[in-house]
Amino acid sequence: MSYIDLDQLPSYATLKTLARSPFDLTARGAVAAQRIQSCVSSTAGFDLLYGTQRVDDGVLAALQQLADEGGAVEQFLAMKKGAVMNRIEGYECENRQVLHTATRDVFSESPLEPASSAQAAKELEKLQRFLADLAGGALVNSRGESFTGMVQVGIGGSDLGPRALYHALAAFRISGRRVDFISNVDPDDAAAVLNGLDLSRTLVNVVSKSGTTLETLTNEELVRQAYSNAGLKPKDHFVAVTGEGSPMDNPERYLRSFYMFDYIGGRYSATSMVGGVMLGFALGYEGFVEILHGAHEVDVAAEQRDIRKNIPLLMALIGIWNHNFLNCETLAVLPYSQGLVRFAAHLQQCDMESNGKSINRQGGKLAYQSGPIIWGEPGTNGQHAFYQLIHQGTTVIPVEFIGFRHSQYDQDMLVKETSSQEKLLANLLAQSLALATGQEHENPNRRFPGNRPNSILMGQLLTPRSMGALLAIYENKIAFQGFIWNTNSFDQEGVQLGKKLATRLLGHFAGRRRDAAYSAAAEDEAGWAMLQMAGLLDD
Amino acid sequence: MSYIDLDQLPSYATLKTLARSPFDLTARGAVAAQRIQSCVSSTAGFDLLYGTQRVDDGVLAALQQLADEGGAVEQFLAMKKGAVMNRIEGYECENRQVLHTATRDVFSESPLEPASSAQAAKELEKLQRFLADLAGGALVNSRGESFTGMVQVGIGGSDLGPRALYHALAAFRISGRRVDFISNVDPDDAAAVLNGLDLSRTLVNVVSKSGTTLETLTNEELVRQAYSNAGLKPKDHFVAVTGEGSPMDNPERYLRSFYMFDYIGGRYSATSMVGGVMLGFALGYEGFVEILHGAHEVDVAAEQRDIRKNIPLLMALIGIWNHNFLNCETLAVLPYSQGLVRFAAHLQQCDMESNGKSINRQGGKLAYQSGPIIWGEPGTNGQHAFYQLIHQGTTVIPVEFIGFRHSQYDQDMLVKETSSQEKLLANLLAQSLALATGQEHENPNRRFPGNRPNSILMGQLLTPRSMGALLAIYENKIAFQGFIWNTNSFDQEGVQLGKKLATRLLGHFAGRRRDAAYSAAAEDEAGWAMLQMAGLLDD
Repeated sequence: MSYIDLDQLPSYATLKTLARSPFDLTARGAVAAQRIQSCVSSTAGFDLLYGTQRVDDGVLAALQQLADEGGAVEQFLAMKKGAVMNRIEGYECENRQVLHTATRDVFSESPLEPASSAQAAKELEKLQRFLADLAGGALVNSRGESFTGMVQVGIGGSDLGPRALYHALAAFRISGRRVDFISNVDPDDAAAVLNGLDLSRTLVNVVSKSGTTLETLTNEELVRQAYSNAGLKPKDHFVAVTGEGSPMDNPERYLRSFYMFDYIGGRYSATSMVGGVMLGFALGYEGFVEILHGAHEVDVAAEQRDIRKNIPLLMALIGIWNHNFLNCETLAVLPYSQGLVRFAAHLQQCDMESNGKSINRQGGKLAYQSGPIIWGEPGTNGQHAFYQLIHQGTTVIPVEFIGFRHSQYDQDMLVKETSSQEKLLANLLAQSLALATGQEHENPNRRFPGNRPNSILMGQLLTPRSMGALLAIYENKIAFQGFIWNTNSFDQEGVQLGKKLATRLLGHFAGRRRDAAYSAAAEDEAGWAMLQMAGLLDD
Repeated sequence: MSYIDLDQLPSYATLKTLARSPFDLTARGAVAAQRIQSCVSSTAGFDLLYGTQRVDDGVLAALQQLADEGGAVEQFLAMKKGAVMNRIEGYECENRQVLHTATRDVFSESPLEPASSAQAAKELEKLQRFLADLAGGALVNSRGESFTGMVQVGIGGSDLGPRALYHALAAFRISGRRVDFISNVDPDDAAAVLNGLDLSRTLVNVVSKSGTTLETLTNEELVRQAYSNAGLKPKDHFVAVTGEGSPMDNPERYLRSFYMFDYIGGRYSATSMVGGVMLGFALGYEGFVEILHGAHEVDVAAEQRDIRKNIPLLMALIGIWNHNFLNCETLAVLPYSQGLVRFAAHLQQCDMESNGKSINRQGGKLAYQSGPIIWGEPGTNGQHAFYQLIHQGTTVIPVEFIGFRHSQYDQDMLVKETSSQEKLLANLLAQSLALATGQEHENPNRRFPGNRPNSILMGQLLTPRSMGALLAIYENKIAFQGFIWNTNSFDQEGVQLGKKLATRLLGHFAGRRRDAAYSAAAEDEAGWAMLQMAGLLDD
């Protein structure tokens, strides 16, 4: 397969032309029943309502052509079958397969990439045993009590995705179990979490693929010290998720170890043991398996070539339309579901770390924009915060709304004739319409320009299964966009320079600890001046 | 005072010219000790390091001119003295004073606006009495036990600012006290909070200026019902913060009532009773007063006309330089302090609701960009998430870093010769340098373009006092920007259209509840079609 830049595909020119007069959502009667009814796609229990996007049949046809010419589905299939997609041709790079989809391709006799699915199945068996031992009393603390808590120590992909899923599914927790998270190297993060816990009944799940992540190892030491200070043996409480053979793969230090593999990127690892151990503890083994079912269902549905029948692909293409053709720099993801409070934070990593790139897969500079800035908070909260700018600001911000027909806890009541869930959903639909259609008014401050493109992704109920599906919708959307932008969505070289400079600055702190007269003013002028002016050289 | 559009000020043309060749941070030796040392400003215990911004003496002189020509400090003084700054000339509008600064101008004999400061002082006295009654045992539950918890029910400004401050200052809580928050109309928000609480020892603080906020009233009813279900009298647990005479100003329903006033905008209300009651409960009266001291110190310092001696004004101007002249659409606020985990969410409201406008204060359309999109998460977490895009993406994102020299809990240890706090700060400085200077490399994937403008706001320790100062630095920065953009930063007409459409859609839910055959397909074609296609008309 040859990878071609977006602006070299024939449909690119077509779309550029179409973008000169995009569909006008503010025209009288433009957003009518017929349009709303015809702009709906369905995948794996979700409906995408996109009648409030600035697309028409011509644009959709050109986007279909773009997907076909860019080989979006072919590349997706190649990825799932084990092609080395994490690669820049002709340059030193990670050179890896991309097989997070294999972690959930464990339900059929003939998985697309049998070797990695077999590895995933083996880890699932280990997890099942571990959870059974916890439930059955084979694994207990030194006083013979069951474990009621878990602290996940990890950062980036070992934190954001798992944490987002935990919050989303807290309503489905095994009674009496809770999970806390420590990620930041800021010592206050660990202190605030540890101060509130009964360590004797708490497991610690340390997650680092490489087994060398600075923040995670440092926080692990802080937590181990807290256990020792409490008279507890860390070995009786700590489990590890890491790469086989990593420095953390050490049975002398951990109760159990679970593996992840180098073909799973951190930001795509929530359905591997990186999310599995903690989610299995919180939800039970079957709960985690439900997440995998939901994700797998989407992975299969995303092979569909007709963009109107493939939500991840359609979202990817509409995103490219808004970003590269209508010139919107950012994307707001606004879930009308309090459970998804950390989902946008996960997407910030999954999307921006994947597609925040400036070169193509041949090492050439991109001549067009790649990944957008992703941000968002749950509605209706956001309505009372930043929606003012979305409605009336000088910048157009495309929005992806997410909603569910039913609430998770089903604790609701009627106030003024409607339930809270109905109020939530009425607001969701109202925002979508208001952004699209706008409003004329003789008072300029009450004018709404409209034509603010948005769509609604609607599910029935946020459960482990639908959460798995939602996760995979976004993972696959992001991969499709990378394929079409011709970027490597699976490396992250952009984090290296900061690490290198931080190591140098840390050397200065260590140098001063060894020798009060230490100075690096000569060999690292800028770094030393920053330390000085930040007031970090005063004693 | 006459308000003039930014692009009509003489310095605008100067800055446009200067923006053709902004200072090149990537030039060899550009970011040297001398530059770093000379680009530092100090206000109220904070230092702003801005040597990694694309400014030089010429740009700073032009920005000083801009501030002078735009009357930034004059308008700020007028605001503090009670001018009607919340206004659009010639059109129906809120027509109000803007006096959140008066809530902390309570320490001198001669406050700038005596009437409102006297009102603030009176509420502070009520708060002091309330807190003393709680501490002294005069206010207890029906079993004579003290209250250990509080739930704040509010949304927008009644939630985000107070919540951000509570998280920032959790290390300073009165032992045994905690606060939870319910904001979203999503019934799962209230359910998740209420399910974990001992209601009998919990106060509920309902906050709504108008006393009519739909989300808050609905959640209040949900919480009242939970109290009744638990056999508790809501009246013995509920306190109110609202406008005098609002529907919530009702002694029959609340233990105590505190007032806020129409000259305090919701997003600027954290230092009024909106934040005060909850923060006083959590931190004690003196803790809240410390917040006011810190904020007041900044309010006074922000009168300084020399932009190099006035951090809020300098940040405002550099923000305008990056936004209107270097054409960056967004701003990332990245605190290297876990306590500030919700500070960016507060700023999203405070900044985007204030300056996300398209008209000037005469009702004319702006010919330039107003408020940017604000987003951010704490570092080092963000480094493992979206920093890839900040370093190597196709979009330039200005960054405001925030850091503190010391950790709050002082629970730290050496790992590999350095403490966690040192690791945190080394990363902060390293990111600032890396973004500014970039890196050349023969492998295109290891190239960093640099020239990504950023600054560091550095404080000693995050305490109530410095948190108050930090809050006011941003509040005043936002106000300064609005003055220079000639926008009304104090209204929020952009939230009205969504509310109106939501009310109509809620009518449909209520209609169907009354009559199963109800249909609005004729009078609200689009809304009814949305309900239908979202699957909300199925039973």
